[in-house]
Amino acid sequence: MSADAPGHPVPGPGVDEDKGATGAANSSAYDPAGDWQHPLWTSLLPIGRDEATGGYRRYAFSAAEAACRDWFRAAAADRGLVTETDRNGNLWAWWAPPGAAPGGPGAVVTGSHLDSVPDGGAFDGPLGVVSAFAAIDLLRERGLVPVRPLGVAAFVEEEGARFGVACLGSRLLTGVLTPAAAAGLTDADGIGLPEAMTAAGFDAAAIGPEPERLDRIAAYVELHIEQGRALEPIGAAIGVAASIWPHGRWRIDFTGRADHAGTTALADRHDPMLPYAATVLAARTAAAGHGGRATIGKVIAEPGGANAICSAVRCWLDARAPDAATLDRLTGAILDAAAASAAEHGVAMTSRRESFTPVVDFDSGLRERVLAALAAHGIDAPVLPTGAGHDAGILADQLPTAMLFVRNPTGVSHAPGERAVAADCDAGVRALAAVLEELACR
Amino acid sequence: MSADAPGHPVPGPGVDEDKGATGAANSSAYDPAGDWQHPLWTSLLPIGRDEATGGYRRYAFSAAEAACRDWFRAAAADRGLVTETDRNGNLWAWWAPPGAAPGGPGAVVTGSHLDSVPDGGAFDGPLGVVSAFAAIDLLRERGLVPVRPLGVAAFVEEEGARFGVACLGSRLLTGVLTPAAAAGLTDADGIGLPEAMTAAGFDAAAIGPEPERLDRIAAYVELHIEQGRALEPIGAAIGVAASIWPHGRWRIDFTGRADHAGTTALADRHDPMLPYAATVLAARTAAAGHGGRATIGKVIAEPGGANAICSAVRCWLDARAPDAATLDRLTGAILDAAAASAAEHGVAMTSRRESFTPVVDFDSGLRERVLAALAAHGIDAPVLPTGAGHDAGILADQLPTAMLFVRNPTGVSHAPGERAVAADCDAGVRALAAVLEELACR
Repeated sequence: MSADAPGHPVPGPGVDEDKGATGAANSSAYDPAGDWQHPLWTSLLPIGRDEATGGYRRYAFSAAEAACRDWFRAAAADRGLVTETDRNGNLWAWWAPPGAAPGGPGAVVTGSHLDSVPDGGAFDGPLGVVSAFAAIDLLRERGLVPVRPLGVAAFVEEEGARFGVACLGSRLLTGVLTPAAAAGLTDADGIGLPEAMTAAGFDAAAIGPEPERLDRIAAYVELHIEQGRALEPIGAAIGVAASIWPHGRWRIDFTGRADHAGTTALADRHDPMLPYAATVLAARTAAAGHGGRATIGKVIAEPGGANAICSAVRCWLDARAPDAATLDRLTGAILDAAAASAAEHGVAMTSRRESFTPVVDFDSGLRERVLAALAAHGIDAPVLPTGAGHDAGILADQLPTAMLFVRNPTGVSHAPGERAVAADCDAGVRALAAVLEELACR
Repeated sequence: MSADAPGHPVPGPGVDEDKGATGAANSSAYDPAGDWQHPLWTSLLPIGRDEATGGYRRYAFSAAEAACRDWFRAAAADRGLVTETDRNGNLWAWWAPPGAAPGGPGAVVTGSHLDSVPDGGAFDGPLGVVSAFAAIDLLRERGLVPVRPLGVAAFVEEEGARFGVACLGSRLLTGVLTPAAAAGLTDADGIGLPEAMTAAGFDAAAIGPEPERLDRIAAYVELHIEQGRALEPIGAAIGVAASIWPHGRWRIDFTGRADHAGTTALADRHDPMLPYAATVLAARTAAAGHGGRATIGKVIAEPGGANAICSAVRCWLDARAPDAATLDRLTGAILDAAAASAAEHGVAMTSRRESFTPVVDFDSGLRERVLAALAAHGIDAPVLPTGAGHDAGILADQLPTAMLFVRNPTGVSHAPGERAVAADCDAGVRALAAVLEELACR
């Protein structure tokens, strides 16, 4: 733990409340060309952006992520917030640091993450962090002062894009993931998490749970761009999370035998690409049949020559369902189909669950307070389930958490085309400020 | 063209004729543990070998390939052969250099290639080059002297593993591939052929056809490890090629839309992995139905995140059939299935034929002379078609060519497990020497 930017309490740039009237924010009459011009947002946009794809590559402990951390510290310092980095690399910026009054009221924390999937959009994660700072600006403009510590958090490796475990920072913080298990993680280049952390200037030996930190937090509220497209059809700019579907990631390895593509008779082949393909199609069929979602977006063919039968095909299955029993049936059907096709083609098949997040039902008491605060500010927010995992879901096991969603008009997510319109982003800031006012200023 | 190693005529190490009796060589009673111990073979084995896989990565104009070239020059120099490199980077070592007597008898050339597919076996290519030098040793041991120039050739990028065009060196030499087309080729890292050649010390501006060189060659005989497993069941150590199936490579691109794997409803997806998978299975079905071969061994999923639907999937189809009409029907069926599945999933699909080699019927007159020479030495070699392309197939359009195959007991090819037993390798050298005696020494 280190205080990176003690700074001084100086009000930062505020949000112009005249931008995006409430009526526009809660209808579908948004301006599709409107991009958010909040200075914090525009200053973050260029970092880690791939000009060729327009997507973001902000991987944990990379140079792009270090630049995002600098941006976070500067935003906090501009607002006189004290930034600290916890043992696991998560960033915290405090308005009235916690622990100053032992036994005092627990802190309220808001935030999200700054890392991205490969070629991710600009909003997934950063919108929640920018909105957190902007909501604090709005509270100050209104002359409000928290009666308990108010924090902004940015969690490490939420997407799991580098080391394969989503919500890595919150899993380490809560102890859901052990330091020993984390130390064994490697990225696609074979670089281990400890090595990557050390190279980025962190103490890799210090990672692990921080129960005393969590004990000091009374509530965590995460604002996030909607993933999927549930708000647009009902004309709502803001939604509140009900639950997160249980979900997990399975690695499936098909091992066959490399051979010449031109000369090996079909009957003599042990081609792992064939059961792989059958598994892709089985996943889609099973997801439709079980009312869940199953996706294979990552596949590695070895050795990958255009004129050779592969020796092995490795893939990752992402599967989600409304409840645990359905998810079990869904993944069981897919893995059974994979095994059957592998056997048919004389190919060995193994599978391993790499990560799993049980169903998360967000704290109902906190949700009611959130909804009441929004209603008091004239914001009518529907309550929705979501198929996406979040740090708020990991933290939910140890403290009350809630989530706000900002409308995603096209539903595009984890892709460069992901977007929210400026009026909805402003509405998100106002909604978050209303919630923080209720939770931290009363 | 440059004379790299003028050298002096010094007999090189010979092949021990007592190793591997003819009986053993022409039966299936081979020693499965027997590895070839010819000094030329063992000196080449370590170059470009990946210790993790046991396979070879000898890509055109790479450091490993440069080491193979050094090995070639040293082997030639040890035998007093004059090495030259032609305009396209192909290596030639001459016993009595051609052109010394204008209007004299045309040269006889034997050889193969030294490059490999990713994680290829040790034999595919190098066996023909080592056997060429070893056969010359055997002729000299027997006191034979050629009456016409006798050359050993090693052609560049036969596998097309780096720049995607198989038989690149012989295609440039014959003019089948134009210098302009070759200059536009790039490897997986985006390095162009000219850049790679320049970096390796070659004059990239000089590439192109050399008709006068081809005019001076009366016959080309290539010895190659069998690909597939036709000789083993009939108990033959050596085979002679009848024809090469027409074959080609098609690149297929599926472009969908990246999205979140957890939140995007199935109905809203444009997942390019689904038509890709359907295409893999359609290729197998079509190959079985048309009596051909179709393989997808190379696939790239973009962006390749485990929790995101792909934006695009790119793959390469290798297809072969006994005749051109069948190949047309085979690839037509596969590409039709790909297009239909792409349309079903709202995915764009394009395909492009990247390379194509028409059917090659090797010169029947030369084949009869080869078979007669083998028979005169007690070698009963069956005549076989093959599904694999070779430089001998490219050269066949402009001069008489023939091929000898050495038994591959398991049929494994383009993989680390590819092998031939020592007795069969020795039988191959004796067979090649018999052919060269007939063609060049009489």
